Amino acid sequence: MNSPEKIWTAGLVIIGDEILSGRTHDKNIAQVASWLQVQGIRLAEVRVVADDEDRIVAAFNALRADNDYVFTTGGIGPTHDDITVDAIAKALGVEVIVHPEARAILEKYYADKGGVNEGRLRMARVPQGAELIRNRMSGAPGIRLGNIFLMAGVPHITAGMLDSLTGELEGGAPLIAETVGGFIPESEVAVMLRKVEQAHEQCQIGSYPFFKEGKVGSNFVVRSTDQAALDACMADLCKGLENEGFGYTVGGI
Amino acid sequence: MNSPEKIWTAGLVIIGDEILSGRTHDKNIAQVASWLQVQGIRLAEVRVVADDEDRIVAAFNALRADNDYVFTTGGIGPTHDDITVDAIAKALGVEVIVHPEARAILEKYYADKGGVNEGRLRMARVPQGAELIRNRMSGAPGIRLGNIFLMAGVPHITAGMLDSLTGELEGGAPLIAETVGGFIPESEVAVMLRKVEQAHEQCQIGSYPFFKEGKVGSNFVVRSTDQAALDACMADLCKGLENEGFGYTVGGI
Repeated sequence: MNSPEKIWTAGLVIIGDEILSGRTHDKNIAQVASWLQVQGIRLAEVRVVADDEDRIVAAFNALRADNDYVFTTGGIGPTHDDITVDAIAKALGVEVIVHPEARAILEKYYADKGGVNEGRLRMARVPQGAELIRNRMSGAPGIRLGNIFLMAGVPHITAGMLDSLTGELEGGAPLIAETVGGFIPESEVAVMLRKVEQAHEQCQIGSYPFFKEGKVGSNFVVRSTDQAALDACMADLCKGLENEGFGYTVGGI
Repeated sequence: MNSPEKIWTAGLVIIGDEILSGRTHDKNIAQVASWLQVQGIRLAEVRVVADDEDRIVAAFNALRADNDYVFTTGGIGPTHDDITVDAIAKALGVEVIVHPEARAILEKYYADKGGVNEGRLRMARVPQGAELIRNRMSGAPGIRLGNIFLMAGVPHITAGMLDSLTGELEGGAPLIAETVGGFIPESEVAVMLRKVEQAHEQCQIGSYPFFKEGKVGSNFVVRSTDQAALDACMADLCKGLENEGFGYTVGGI
């Protein structure tokens, strides 16, 4: 199923006033990004938007047009500010229905917790044609429509939904990465980094400065889909650091 | 200077392959969002894009068209993957120049660290017409062009640049928020929450579930620019929780 020549990409829409107000620190970008890497899919863009139908629709449509997959997190809970299902149904031009299986899951989950009420039943609403994404953490499932995935915003529930999807999506060759780091100011090796990257077309080098133990340092990350190309680039990079008189640690600091 | 009737908004472009690969956990969204709140400016949208000129330009232009202010973080360092200045200059249709004051700052900062080299001089490059944003943490300054702000990606340096800008930007009435929380499943009070929000036009209520000490709970955040409206909404919300038989803690859990 894998097509090494095609690069599969995904867009992610993070839905939530709580992220834009600074109240909640987002954890889903890194979590979704890392998971996608393993599936051989690159996260191409993230948009964080408010709990506002027009803004959700605009972000979703833009990312859908540009990518193989679109994921959303947030706004699929039981309260009035959970409007993701309605927004995506509107964007797709389909009705919102109560999914019979989702309703059954919620009825079972809430059987000894007061039963299904109006708010809880909201979590069984899906855009017509949707399948469910299993959620072992709490009753409410996520929602899949082909290459579109609507997931929870609470990070450990998102994680459970991603876990249910592992291996289910077609992707390309996973991007592999290796790191070399040291107490090296990136500004002293910038010219060398550029030359090494230019000499290795199949690789990209990222430079990430840090401050540790009162000293300046950098980690250099080489990324490629080809292990041999990656190895050759890493070898040249390490040699370049030696030539400039720096010690380094493979694996990074 | 404040115009309470106008809502000032900002867009934020986070630039960096390291965020989209999941390697680095973003801290700038929350940091910029919280800082903007205090300035009376709302963060309306965030886009996370790769170190790619076309993608930076597209995100920047879109957010600039829709908002009073645009901030970027990342990509203003000394290495080949730092392309923010070139991308924004291209978007604005202006040249990139070496800013004399930025050059002087870097020459002083690096005087006892090997001097200014080609990589370090990159950090003095700005779109023509730019002013500098002071950075007490490291030599390289941020860049301001009117309502456009290019800041560092390393969070504590970003923080220093935000600090330099505190009080400098025109904003509206700050959005104020109060929280009430408890071991309350949000699905049991969803109908009440919606009713209380509908009864208080100047307020929004956000509902944020959590799991703590093995129990389900929620924090409910009331937001408004009007303190009296906020107080009235909070009072009704607390009464609503009491009527449903729930205990609660003002300030949240």
